[in-house]
Amino acid sequence: MLSTMQDVPLTVSRILTHGSTVHGKAQVITWTGEAEPHRRTFAEIGRRAAQLAHALHDTLGVAAEERVGTLMWNNSEHMEAYLGIPSMGAVLHTLNLRLPAEQLAWIINHAEDRVVLVNGTLIPLLAPLLPQLPTVAHVVVVGPGDRTPLADAHAQVHDYEELLAGRAERYDWPEIDEREAAALCYTSGTTGEPKGVLYSHRSLYLHSLQVNTAEAFALGSRDIALPVVPMFHVNAWGLPHAAFMAGASLLMPDRFLQPAPLAEMIETIRPTIGAAVPTIWQGLLAELDAHKRDVACLHTVVIGGSACPPALMRGFQERHGIRVVHAWGMTETSPLGCVSHPPAGVDDEEEWAYRATQGRFPASVEARLIGPAGEELPWDGTAAGELEVRGPWIAGAYYGGAQGALLRPEDKFSPDGWLRTGDVGTITPDGYLTLTDRAKDVIKSGGEWISSVELENHLMAHPGVAEAAVVAVPDEKWGERPLATVVLTDGSAITYEELRAFLGERIARWQLPERWAVIPSVPKTSVGKFDKKVLRRQYADGELDVTLLS
Amino acid sequence: MLSTMQDVPLTVSRILTHGSTVHGKAQVITWTGEAEPHRRTFAEIGRRAAQLAHALHDTLGVAAEERVGTLMWNNSEHMEAYLGIPSMGAVLHTLNLRLPAEQLAWIINHAEDRVVLVNGTLIPLLAPLLPQLPTVAHVVVVGPGDRTPLADAHAQVHDYEELLAGRAERYDWPEIDEREAAALCYTSGTTGEPKGVLYSHRSLYLHSLQVNTAEAFALGSRDIALPVVPMFHVNAWGLPHAAFMAGASLLMPDRFLQPAPLAEMIETIRPTIGAAVPTIWQGLLAELDAHKRDVACLHTVVIGGSACPPALMRGFQERHGIRVVHAWGMTETSPLGCVSHPPAGVDDEEEWAYRATQGRFPASVEARLIGPAGEELPWDGTAAGELEVRGPWIAGAYYGGAQGALLRPEDKFSPDGWLRTGDVGTITPDGYLTLTDRAKDVIKSGGEWISSVELENHLMAHPGVAEAAVVAVPDEKWGERPLATVVLTDGSAITYEELRAFLGERIARWQLPERWAVIPSVPKTSVGKFDKKVLRRQYADGELDVTLLS
Repeated sequence: MLSTMQDVPLTVSRILTHGSTVHGKAQVITWTGEAEPHRRTFAEIGRRAAQLAHALHDTLGVAAEERVGTLMWNNSEHMEAYLGIPSMGAVLHTLNLRLPAEQLAWIINHAEDRVVLVNGTLIPLLAPLLPQLPTVAHVVVVGPGDRTPLADAHAQVHDYEELLAGRAERYDWPEIDEREAAALCYTSGTTGEPKGVLYSHRSLYLHSLQVNTAEAFALGSRDIALPVVPMFHVNAWGLPHAAFMAGASLLMPDRFLQPAPLAEMIETIRPTIGAAVPTIWQGLLAELDAHKRDVACLHTVVIGGSACPPALMRGFQERHGIRVVHAWGMTETSPLGCVSHPPAGVDDEEEWAYRATQGRFPASVEARLIGPAGEELPWDGTAAGELEVRGPWIAGAYYGGAQGALLRPEDKFSPDGWLRTGDVGTITPDGYLTLTDRAKDVIKSGGEWISSVELENHLMAHPGVAEAAVVAVPDEKWGERPLATVVLTDGSAITYEELRAFLGERIARWQLPERWAVIPSVPKTSVGKFDKKVLRRQYADGELDVTLLS
Repeated sequence: MLSTMQDVPLTVSRILTHGSTVHGKAQVITWTGEAEPHRRTFAEIGRRAAQLAHALHDTLGVAAEERVGTLMWNNSEHMEAYLGIPSMGAVLHTLNLRLPAEQLAWIINHAEDRVVLVNGTLIPLLAPLLPQLPTVAHVVVVGPGDRTPLADAHAQVHDYEELLAGRAERYDWPEIDEREAAALCYTSGTTGEPKGVLYSHRSLYLHSLQVNTAEAFALGSRDIALPVVPMFHVNAWGLPHAAFMAGASLLMPDRFLQPAPLAEMIETIRPTIGAAVPTIWQGLLAELDAHKRDVACLHTVVIGGSACPPALMRGFQERHGIRVVHAWGMTETSPLGCVSHPPAGVDDEEEWAYRATQGRFPASVEARLIGPAGEELPWDGTAAGELEVRGPWIAGAYYGGAQGALLRPEDKFSPDGWLRTGDVGTITPDGYLTLTDRAKDVIKSGGEWISSVELENHLMAHPGVAEAAVVAVPDEKWGERPLATVVLTDGSAITYEELRAFLGERIARWQLPERWAVIPSVPKTSVGKFDKKVLRRQYADGELDVTLLS
């Protein structure tokens, strides 16, 4: 029996219209590195998103379902593209500006982007690739930057402001099926070809609603959100859409992602909530420790993208009064998979233990743990298995290209359609997920599993250690054993023996690494995660100065 | 181009499964009037909801889409029914126990309820109706109460606990299309036959997500919610579903809705957020003013159902430190239509002014104001028109009965499918709705509109006035004029002349009522709203002692 409720699709255009009317006075504030940041109201963003849609549709001929790429920093023009492109029925393809050139080209060609919007400062990245990008008919340059590298391009080059100027400030947004594609983001997969996730209007809408709940990030119209996490990195964790839905203003850092300007923009604009990967926050924490700043405006700092060292969480809270909220997700999960809010009625130490977990699943994310033999494991806080998830904002396939069928690789999707996350962990009876390792990073030592993340967290809690990465290396006797690589803090004179003794007080003896190496920094992927693939290769190639403790 | 996201329907069973696993330790606490309240965990509710579904399906033969009525107070068994009945694919029909007997019978017959769950204490209400209810094959009695009135019933009578005992604690919930009906609620319409709104799984799910956002009621797992608003009154404003989704515990008042037990349960169980109509809060405020209680646990009190007198909001905040959140909705809007959170950066007086509005629309509720000539009016804070709304949790029709087509009366739905709310008001440029009147309650005096609500609010702000209701009465010269009826506070000796002078300082002279009457209490509808229909009839029949001021 059908209900009597209205059948109104959940679309990005509704988020845009809502934010630019009911919350028309809220602002997108873009940091410029100069005395005055750039400010644009949500109402202006709404008008300019309509102008952009007119330009793309009326002049550049972008049709429904065609892909429009953005190679841009977090700024207000990127926001216009974020909302305007899906609203007109096209697909927003966010391009990761930290990818190697050949991967960037591969992705643009796979997506068959017809138009690319590029920040002027990023022309040096795009211009050399253009000859290899036959589908790109138009390049739209946003903001200042030397355009001469584009002089010989086969694509037509436009200036963003000129393209928008004088166009109608309203667009009759089409009524789109909510299951249609709205945005495209490729995984920066560490192995194999990048894989495209096509978010739907429905998935973005539902995800934004969840982001705004109290159990997630609780954005409201009194908040100013600072997405340091790039807009090309999994929808900037949902903050741009969620902010427009809730009427929260946005502070956009543009290309100023270093600790000093971040500290300055926080002190000046006073955001209430920020989101970034641990590496960024680690840098900011060091900056705040060194140079006192008034950052009390930040009631919440969301950390995700990789496991957050407990020392980092405590540092923010205890020295700067900023509450750290740990979250977990991936490109395939939009990304909101888990958020860690401790339960009520626990003491201080228990609260810290809960904070260090990846957190609880929201109602729209169903989870199960699958053991080595394919069996479903209990939520007992002990049984460790691969996490599989299901839900309306979880990918069920990858984009196969314009002519191709959807891709459902077996190692990524279970036969009944759940996403295999590749993460190994435990879930407590009250639903808190603790990830211990990537399935491929677990150290299989003599039939037992050693968690590299656990070793890293213990090592990074030592004052003499700035960063630590533990990887599996081949071992004749045990199959695999852990190699501990550490980055020392300035002036640290800690020895391997001392570090091993420090670990020995915290973990079982058989888990203690024999192999140690000091490295200048941990290799990172384009989105700032530890790149263990590089470390394993360096070890194999004998590039690391490894000490063997007996 | 379809997205690559999973196609997972938004269903009540997902809310139930989520709450009873991830938040299995949260509790439904039911007040019993005795020393110890009754406590059941969400995990237990989940198991018992499955047992109820087995009982209904396996033993009572309830099939998909069949209606199961509940004539119950707010308690944990009602929660089991709330979640279990829609999850199994049947339709939960909440019965308003305050309706006149003949209306209750009409509704049960129109819905063709096959089973009715009834609290033992409410048997005296149901038993006399049963002979007129041919579709009701089973009556399930929940909790203690004299069952002799049911002895001769044609329906089979069951005991709830006996029916559940020993059944499987898991149910393989069917995968239901999210647009299917989940719950049925009839409007307690003041005119004409009651009209049924069939909520879908989708509408309940989306509505619950919105309830949990920071811009609405922000329920989280550290909250305890107290829905004083009955579960038969528009989904108890979404709190039961939202609480299960967020892991917020619930304090259920059962039949203890009087000021003294409410104050006691708040002091004892320490809920953090409560929701009720103004009449209930008015009673509680008087109780708290008279007998000091520690109610600081309540950070938020949601008031809706009818316009909230500003004096009530200030009383809670200024004398008891409780923030009042004004909300607007109706049966047809699930009910969340607006919530009033003041914007950032306003001073104290402005904040109170914003608080007194009905608030802002959430992203999923689109709104427009329609003027007397059918034209769409601007959001300028001045132009007053009838509010029309659209969205995924807004009704687009009424239930026409098992064999009938959906009903779309012209006075309730616009030709393009928007809901005509029957409420008249203004919207500010920043999206705040202020309702002044019901379209039918506006006093049309000489070509101008006089707002009865405005007059009432001013009158109720006078210390000598407990309640005031203003209705339109026929007038030879002006067409209509306001009649002011007032309930005096104990010991008040205020005169009509003094009240008129008090009003004269606040509103235009031509709006001042000439006709005045003191009444012992304002007649109320079954859900506690002012019943102006009764007042108009009493005036017409000469039953009121009216004084005419010259």
